[in-house]
Amino acid sequence: MAGQKRWFLGIDIGGTNIKAGVVDTQGKVVRQAKIPTGREEGMEAVLKRVARLAGRLIEECGLEMEEVGGAGIGVPGIVNLERSMVLNAPNLGWYRQPLRERLKEHLGLPVLIDNDANLAAVGEYWVGAGNGESNFLMVTIGTGIGSGLILNGELYRGSTGAGAELGHMILDREGYLCGCGNRGCLETLTSATAIVRRMKEAIEAGGDSILGHKKDFHARDVFDAALRGDKLSRQVVAEMADYLAIALANVVNLLDIPLIVVGGGVAQAGGILFERLRRGVKERILVPEDRPVRIIPARLGNAAGLIGAAKLAMDLGLRGEV
Amino acid sequence: MAGQKRWFLGIDIGGTNIKAGVVDTQGKVVRQAKIPTGREEGMEAVLKRVARLAGRLIEECGLEMEEVGGAGIGVPGIVNLERSMVLNAPNLGWYRQPLRERLKEHLGLPVLIDNDANLAAVGEYWVGAGNGESNFLMVTIGTGIGSGLILNGELYRGSTGAGAELGHMILDREGYLCGCGNRGCLETLTSATAIVRRMKEAIEAGGDSILGHKKDFHARDVFDAALRGDKLSRQVVAEMADYLAIALANVVNLLDIPLIVVGGGVAQAGGILFERLRRGVKERILVPEDRPVRIIPARLGNAAGLIGAAKLAMDLGLRGEV
Repeated sequence: MAGQKRWFLGIDIGGTNIKAGVVDTQGKVVRQAKIPTGREEGMEAVLKRVARLAGRLIEECGLEMEEVGGAGIGVPGIVNLERSMVLNAPNLGWYRQPLRERLKEHLGLPVLIDNDANLAAVGEYWVGAGNGESNFLMVTIGTGIGSGLILNGELYRGSTGAGAELGHMILDREGYLCGCGNRGCLETLTSATAIVRRMKEAIEAGGDSILGHKKDFHARDVFDAALRGDKLSRQVVAEMADYLAIALANVVNLLDIPLIVVGGGVAQAGGILFERLRRGVKERILVPEDRPVRIIPARLGNAAGLIGAAKLAMDLGLRGEV
Repeated sequence: MAGQKRWFLGIDIGGTNIKAGVVDTQGKVVRQAKIPTGREEGMEAVLKRVARLAGRLIEECGLEMEEVGGAGIGVPGIVNLERSMVLNAPNLGWYRQPLRERLKEHLGLPVLIDNDANLAAVGEYWVGAGNGESNFLMVTIGTGIGSGLILNGELYRGSTGAGAELGHMILDREGYLCGCGNRGCLETLTSATAIVRRMKEAIEAGGDSILGHKKDFHARDVFDAALRGDKLSRQVVAEMADYLAIALANVVNLLDIPLIVVGGGVAQAGGILFERLRRGVKERILVPEDRPVRIIPARLGNAAGLIGAAKLAMDLGLRGEV
């Protein structure tokens, strides 16, 4: 045996970008890079790009492939851990793909795959906002909504490896149609996509806003406008925060957890979101005076997923499971 | 040491009745009884009645108090395990009561208290419908809605002991006002109380039903009428089942559990409820083809809570914790 490995690869395959990094055993990202996913070229092309990116990073670190202990891969979708298969990753267009085997071939390394938000939870628990708290919910709010649960200091996977999918908590049964086929999922109410849609609808309905003249804008612009006092934007942000507060309060009432870490692009909205969110959760949980719930922004930003991926690869490597 | 005890007391203090039983180490209820709670007389009077009932049962079994290993007590409310306190039991009118200490004095036995639905989950796991499945949700639907989670073969209590309170999952933010102060909690939509209210509203709004001439009726009557083809009753039952299906699907999407056990009076509605419920959950969970979820009625009926209470007293007694 060549001794314990000191470096691990973390790779986060998103609908838009692939983020990859070489991570050491302390959770430090030694080197990282981001390239477009190019999902329209199909899965094989994406996997080849992942392998080239990984090879390049390892080379740039002055390492040999043999010095890398393994690779953790995050995908935005439902992963069956037992079969190491991506069951359903709609943003990538991947269904029932044996991703672990395919990537093992491409990378020539032990590989594990998991849901991207699960990995972000692991990353934040290891060296981020969840460090020191062995029970918390991680929610990532961007184009979609992902989530991961840390219970008793371990990533909670559920009986098939599919949980926790907070994004599909149904909160408005007559609401917008969701990509999953249901109506009124949290994702249709509070994702970046949902915020832009609500704002556009409000403007089209005749609402007055400084964003009214813009042909196109992002969730970030709605938060900015709200911060600058734009009334319509404030309404949309408040509505979004209230729905998110309902979802988080539902989780606290069900699981009695003391911490929620909010990540993803939308979390960067800062105080305007977090203040209303904290108040909204407190109003909706049982016996709030007896169980303070902290709701805080993630600390690792976009790197949470790849750091968590490297951590899982490390842990499983140490246990001889990959 | 006098050796291991073979009998334990299980006591379930409800808003209407107190159920108590002497339970052996195999989960068999050797003797049980039910008396009115009489909560209007105040907590001390209730506790005295509990002590008298316990004494009577033990005597009827031909046992001495010293032969009983301990007592587990269930209450319909939020219990803080650390402080052994009932934080909030609205149906009893008890707030912030150090119940464990008070009952220890009255009973002269080691005592533990817990949420009644938590104890029902423990009971069904031990010798009921959940036996053999180490991850499941127990929901009890009666006057209110309670729930308990078994994860990894253990009762899940959360960080303060308050979880899991599924009854207060908010599903309709503009819905009925709940006793907890929020609107649209599951309890306002699918409890026995909620079913009767919806049915009365539908009749008052001019709906035609065989229950229309009745001055008063119970949830059971609505299910019976639905079974006999009463259209309005069928609508109310369908709506109730759909909301319950949303709540259960939300839990499955969040926790990826393979089994839900439904208990309480409403569960006795049988097929008319369970068929729609099973279909409704399947329609709303992600990747249903990859994770079959069983939804089955509880098996221990009204005794689930007291059996679970005795089981916890037994387990903690064996570990020397009570």
